[in-house]
Amino acid sequence: MYFEELRVINFADRDDKKAIEHGLGFAPKFDDRGLIPVVTTCAKTGRVLMQAWMNAEAIAKTIETGQAHYFSRSRQSLWHKGATSGEFQLVRDFRTDCDQDSLWLVVDQKGGKCCHVGHTSCFYRSIPIGQNLADGQAVKLVSDEE
Amino acid sequence: MYFEELRVINFADRDDKKAIEHGLGFAPKFDDRGLIPVVTTCAKTGRVLMQAWMNAEAIAKTIETGQAHYFSRSRQSLWHKGATSGEFQLVRDFRTDCDQDSLWLVVDQKGGKCCHVGHTSCFYRSIPIGQNLADGQAVKLVSDEE
Repeated sequence: MYFEELRVINFADRDDKKAIEHGLGFAPKFDDRGLIPVVTTCAKTGRVLMQAWMNAEAIAKTIETGQAHYFSRSRQSLWHKGATSGEFQLVRDFRTDCDQDSLWLVVDQKGGKCCHVGHTSCFYRSIPIGQNLADGQAVKLVSDEE
Repeated sequence: MYFEELRVINFADRDDKKAIEHGLGFAPKFDDRGLIPVVTTCAKTGRVLMQAWMNAEAIAKTIETGQAHYFSRSRQSLWHKGATSGEFQLVRDFRTDCDQDSLWLVVDQKGGKCCHVGHTSCFYRSIPIGQNLADGQAVKLVSDEE
């Protein structure tokens, strides 16, 4: 199944570090599960909406359709975001990083809510900075008012 | 060494899904290497600067110092970003997502350049959307002019 997916899209080789960092060949690095992390931000607010994973098939579907596709690790299958809820993510920009082991999607989020818990962004809780942890005190998160 | 690091910071249990998603206990999920992915954005521009990894020690150091610390997978050690270059990342916000398996740092990037290749952001190349991949054509990246 994995090799079937790889036939969908031709990637560049990863044997030349300079080409990976400076070239224009798309050579994503997949981990031992065939996955690469992707961060998704909102085109309007610049806010991080979610962090997820793609396999080769999800990358190909995202490029071809202009709608975000991920690989669901819990369901172990292709995940067309919004296919059941109608809350599709329309891709405005899709990027790869220097060593091509991470991807970035900029999207218009249909319906405005990205997170399954009901928030605009999955990142609705802050971790306070500047605490002294030496006394073994637990870290308490701070939730956004929405 | 891993257990030594865990003593630095007390995390909440991950046995209650509702508490993980709605509660104020910080219960990060580490993978089998003891790592959690983190995306770092620029406080000024909202742009994604980089995607990296943290272990428990990197999280604790980031909270205590207010400067971004990661775990370098290539060096297999704590990575205080900017320790050699002076290009520290001052943390303006630190967040966890709904299922607490991903983190988000908002930073002021000292020196303005985040990427070791010399760019403002590691994500200096776009992946064009809307191509038909059925003919097996390779995907060509588009590089930013900086």
